[in-house]
Amino acid sequence: MSDGEDKVRVVFLPSGRRGEVPKGSTLLGAARALGADIDSSCGGRAICGRCQIRVMEGDFPGEGIRSSVEHVTPPGEAETKYDRLRGLREGCRLACQTRVTGDVVVDVPPESQIHHQVVRKDAEAAEMAVDPLVRALLVDVERPDMENPSSDFDRLAAALEEEWGLSDLRPSAAILPGLQKALREGDWQVTAIVHQADVDAPPLLLDVRPGFDETLLGLAVDIGSTTIAAHLTDLHTGEVLAAGGIMNPQIRFGEDLMSRVSHAMTTDGGTEEMRDAVREAVNRLAADVTARAGFSPSDIVDAVFVGNPVMHHLFLGIDPRELGQAPFALAVGGALELPARDLGLDLAPAGRAYLPPCIAGHVGADAAAVVLAEAPYERDEISLIVDVGTNAEIILGNRERLLACSSPTGPAFEGAQISSGQRAAPGAIERVRIDRETLAPRFRVIGVEPWSDEEGFAEAVAETGVTGICGSGIIEAVAEMYLAGIIHSDGRFNEALADACPHVKRVGRGFAYVLHSGEPEISVTQEDVRAIQLAKAALHAGARLLMDEFGTDRVDRIRLAGAFGNHIDPLHAMILGLIPDCPPEHVSSAGNAAGTGARMALVSREARREIEEVVRRIEKVETAVEPRFQEHFVAAMAIPHASAPYESLAAVVDLPRPMMAAQRPRAGRRNRRSRPSPRGD
Amino acid sequence: MSDGEDKVRVVFLPSGRRGEVPKGSTLLGAARALGADIDSSCGGRAICGRCQIRVMEGDFPGEGIRSSVEHVTPPGEAETKYDRLRGLREGCRLACQTRVTGDVVVDVPPESQIHHQVVRKDAEAAEMAVDPLVRALLVDVERPDMENPSSDFDRLAAALEEEWGLSDLRPSAAILPGLQKALREGDWQVTAIVHQADVDAPPLLLDVRPGFDETLLGLAVDIGSTTIAAHLTDLHTGEVLAAGGIMNPQIRFGEDLMSRVSHAMTTDGGTEEMRDAVREAVNRLAADVTARAGFSPSDIVDAVFVGNPVMHHLFLGIDPRELGQAPFALAVGGALELPARDLGLDLAPAGRAYLPPCIAGHVGADAAAVVLAEAPYERDEISLIVDVGTNAEIILGNRERLLACSSPTGPAFEGAQISSGQRAAPGAIERVRIDRETLAPRFRVIGVEPWSDEEGFAEAVAETGVTGICGSGIIEAVAEMYLAGIIHSDGRFNEALADACPHVKRVGRGFAYVLHSGEPEISVTQEDVRAIQLAKAALHAGARLLMDEFGTDRVDRIRLAGAFGNHIDPLHAMILGLIPDCPPEHVSSAGNAAGTGARMALVSREARREIEEVVRRIEKVETAVEPRFQEHFVAAMAIPHASAPYESLAAVVDLPRPMMAAQRPRAGRRNRRSRPSPRGD
Repeated sequence: MSDGEDKVRVVFLPSGRRGEVPKGSTLLGAARALGADIDSSCGGRAICGRCQIRVMEGDFPGEGIRSSVEHVTPPGEAETKYDRLRGLREGCRLACQTRVTGDVVVDVPPESQIHHQVVRKDAEAAEMAVDPLVRALLVDVERPDMENPSSDFDRLAAALEEEWGLSDLRPSAAILPGLQKALREGDWQVTAIVHQADVDAPPLLLDVRPGFDETLLGLAVDIGSTTIAAHLTDLHTGEVLAAGGIMNPQIRFGEDLMSRVSHAMTTDGGTEEMRDAVREAVNRLAADVTARAGFSPSDIVDAVFVGNPVMHHLFLGIDPRELGQAPFALAVGGALELPARDLGLDLAPAGRAYLPPCIAGHVGADAAAVVLAEAPYERDEISLIVDVGTNAEIILGNRERLLACSSPTGPAFEGAQISSGQRAAPGAIERVRIDRETLAPRFRVIGVEPWSDEEGFAEAVAETGVTGICGSGIIEAVAEMYLAGIIHSDGRFNEALADACPHVKRVGRGFAYVLHSGEPEISVTQEDVRAIQLAKAALHAGARLLMDEFGTDRVDRIRLAGAFGNHIDPLHAMILGLIPDCPPEHVSSAGNAAGTGARMALVSREARREIEEVVRRIEKVETAVEPRFQEHFVAAMAIPHASAPYESLAAVVDLPRPMMAAQRPRAGRRNRRSRPSPRGD
Repeated sequence: MSDGEDKVRVVFLPSGRRGEVPKGSTLLGAARALGADIDSSCGGRAICGRCQIRVMEGDFPGEGIRSSVEHVTPPGEAETKYDRLRGLREGCRLACQTRVTGDVVVDVPPESQIHHQVVRKDAEAAEMAVDPLVRALLVDVERPDMENPSSDFDRLAAALEEEWGLSDLRPSAAILPGLQKALREGDWQVTAIVHQADVDAPPLLLDVRPGFDETLLGLAVDIGSTTIAAHLTDLHTGEVLAAGGIMNPQIRFGEDLMSRVSHAMTTDGGTEEMRDAVREAVNRLAADVTARAGFSPSDIVDAVFVGNPVMHHLFLGIDPRELGQAPFALAVGGALELPARDLGLDLAPAGRAYLPPCIAGHVGADAAAVVLAEAPYERDEISLIVDVGTNAEIILGNRERLLACSSPTGPAFEGAQISSGQRAAPGAIERVRIDRETLAPRFRVIGVEPWSDEEGFAEAVAETGVTGICGSGIIEAVAEMYLAGIIHSDGRFNEALADACPHVKRVGRGFAYVLHSGEPEISVTQEDVRAIQLAKAALHAGARLLMDEFGTDRVDRIRLAGAFGNHIDPLHAMILGLIPDCPPEHVSSAGNAAGTGARMALVSREARREIEEVVRRIEKVETAVEPRFQEHFVAAMAIPHASAPYESLAAVVDLPRPMMAAQRPRAGRRNRRSRPSPRGD
């Protein structure tokens, strides 16, 4: 239904952008004229293949259009060559080469949209927006001319304005030395790498490459106090090209956060030592992951860094001492968008770096990344998101309100301050089960496939030995000890077992449950149980405090983030009372949510804007000044603290019979124990 | 004439801003409310004393106001204390402490205006705008609070917004490590150093200092191929606090520009060597001038750099090879506003650097600075501005049009390619006079006070010796040789003198005029005369070409910029025909115009905007592709080339009688010589 001889109607799906364009227009030109989103790096030269679309066949009564592939020009030489060399997708045409001769409806598949959504691999999450801040744009630059002595940069900027509509281009000083060579090597055709932090900010020229080279790599980095993890990402697609991890070398200055803060306070140049150590590790990691994907760190044009506030500050070279004492003031908390070289990074010389905002002095940019990945603000249900390290970072809320706090769990969940405790590393016991009848333990060791009671364990464990128990191991051990009746609800050992059971022994005036009687002997002492009780009470109290503030006594779903969430069995966490009651099927691991959030911020300008906006409206709750926190804390000391829905747990737990037995008071062999009251006893 | 009981009328002079304000307002508050420009660094705390004004006494019929010092509150405790400690200027009050109780007319002296003009010391120039991009702002920052866990930076930004109206403050990464310490040392009162490249750009935080410290230093640097000169400047006032110069260490890679370009082309890493050399020299110079003024380089928060295109590119680390060959393409020519550390400078960690635009491949940022200092675009008369180095940079025009070109004078004007030539340095002959009757020379040597025929010369010159002749010396020598009849108008030696005059001798098949017969002998050969003829013809032809393009055959005034302009006697330059005819009283030295322009750009955002705008509309004329340049060049070879107004010259020249003799054809003793034709012979 064209208006005249020279106009035809074009409808783009799924955007629904429609209108008339002159007959003979390319579909890429039509898309731009009508505001439909079709990607292109080569600007219509049949090189990049990003503009592949499908011309639909058939009647579209809603549009009053009959669309047909006969309403466009057939593939010409350039398109045929592209198809031969790189291959068009099934049924696709290059929008830049296809000219309209009649009315058409055009389908733009997600991979051909500049702004598109990709499916995330992690379990629950839906999609991830891809609208990177960096683009690769092919341009033909006018040659210099004595009659018109403008600079090479000015002519490049003019070409980018003419071909891509970018005005007010600014150079990064770092790219100036290579500019002229690239233009001449490319015979005045170059790919400009252009960065725009905001859509209305002046575009910044990050790189100029001879000819067509649309490589756009980004690095998403999660700086944990123990490990640093990085994902090398294709900024066009959001695809992870390589991932890697490395120990945080700051460990030599202190295992936990407080000892690093203390190193900064007590050692001249301590902050700079730790800053340089982490930056150097990031550089090594960048070299490693790029090498594995066949690239170089200088191909990385953008990077995102998340970490808790102490990691965040040390990475920026900021003395973290204020984070170690009330009122826990951050030096800087807002999002930072900076030249990567200002952070000592050896990426592309003009590469950029982004740090999402910290939420508060104890709730860092990693928690912000978790919020972005989990998007509780998009749900009606109330989510509780827990990320446990030395402090637990806790987020609660829904689309109405979001609250955050941190809770001083201490390092027990990381295996510290536990008699046989150690960091999660090969040799550490990570899973524990206790036979409800014999009270005999069986366990699994990190890096070793069989359980301790399975065939081949002795051989498999020979290399590492059994060296200690890590955070997830001690949590399961305490939960299992409770389920097996070895400890009471208040955490005390069942004294009767000390003489009756070979696995329970007296230690001084207390008791210990022996997990492994080798060298070293690995046991769980009364003090260990107390440490876990304190930690879990703090975590639980933090969550309860947020629920009070929110005005709810239930949560709809619980997400356990990070290494903690990955390694802890959610059921054991609920049995122990780490987290509030919730239908067990609604408790799940959020995986590496901080890393996912970092990747989302890496590939999406919209995601950055979103997390900055969300963090501004998160209500920060300070546990240290809240009297109710203390009340909740005391109330949460017992195991299980609350009216945990045991029957529903029992339906899904892997050891139903003994567990049920453990829930009921046992007469005879063990002391009689009453059913715990809703708020502990 | 107040409108009601509670309002009073206030008029600010000289701005004429007027209006009603509530009775009891401070004059600083009234000024802000009415848009009058009163400076302040301390924000109304009676600390900085920048807001001193005078309340006028008497009737102002035009305003319908009787103003009186009795219409304001008398000085209170804070103001009296300021007066005691730092002293108020005569008749002045602190606007921030003075409250209005009745109608007043207030005089705001220039030194109390944020944007003001200061008188320049250089001869002809009028005033210089002071409206720096960097400001020092005292603020009280809210203490951190666990109830409201915002970051220190956020609270500082909030204070700057509330007290100074600055929104969207951004941190430089370099200041983050020192932020918390400064806030605590200053007990939450700090001076924020804030930079705004454009009035509507987001302000950038450059430094935070405990308490009140409004030190604002800038460095204006002229990077010459031979020397680097720097002016340390108070950004509040535009005052030069210290100045210094240093040899450009790039000299070891080549004396002139072409040999440096060649070094870059032939030596791996040659560009980087030269880049590092000049940056290191700038750092030493910054350390030197700040030390002499009692400061440190880290007090320098902004710097401006000017230089010819090769110096400009090498300073930026850009290989200058393209500038050494047609079409002389600049890598980047527009103004650059960058972090100083990106240029390898050890100034304030977050300090800024500005490079004014280059005009064309041969006409650099130094020429742009000259244009800014000379402001030919503000005049009706046609100015010709000449800055001579290895190339002559020539500007011609008025408020209607501005044209620029460079002309390949070669290095003869710098003493190179001259048999006894040398750089301007102690020991070099810089002034020459020749007795018209005896043809005996007398001269002056750089670093030596007496002329060679004056008492004490022998003793004074003993230290340096007479080592050669520099650019200004050879120009005067050739002009004097012509005036004395030793050479003809076409540059040939008067052969008859070779046997008749003891100062003229045969050298091979040519001749030489001996200036100094010591060791080494210093003479001017036929080849030297030719070299000067070629250079002056190029300069003259460039000027003529611009005049043709402009459509004029006269210029109203000529300004000789830089070392050339400082050392050359304008009369000798006209006699020799370096520059077109112009009334001699309108030919003058522009002094260090490039340095002045750099200082102007340093202290004024408006000046930067102005030079960027002016350079965009300068019409670039390329001598190399202009056939008329060759015609002018050939025509300009003779001495004097044109209808120089000899009689008017004779009226002011210091040696009138012999000069007049030299102008007229002499019979008998010398060969008859015809009066030169208007365009040479």
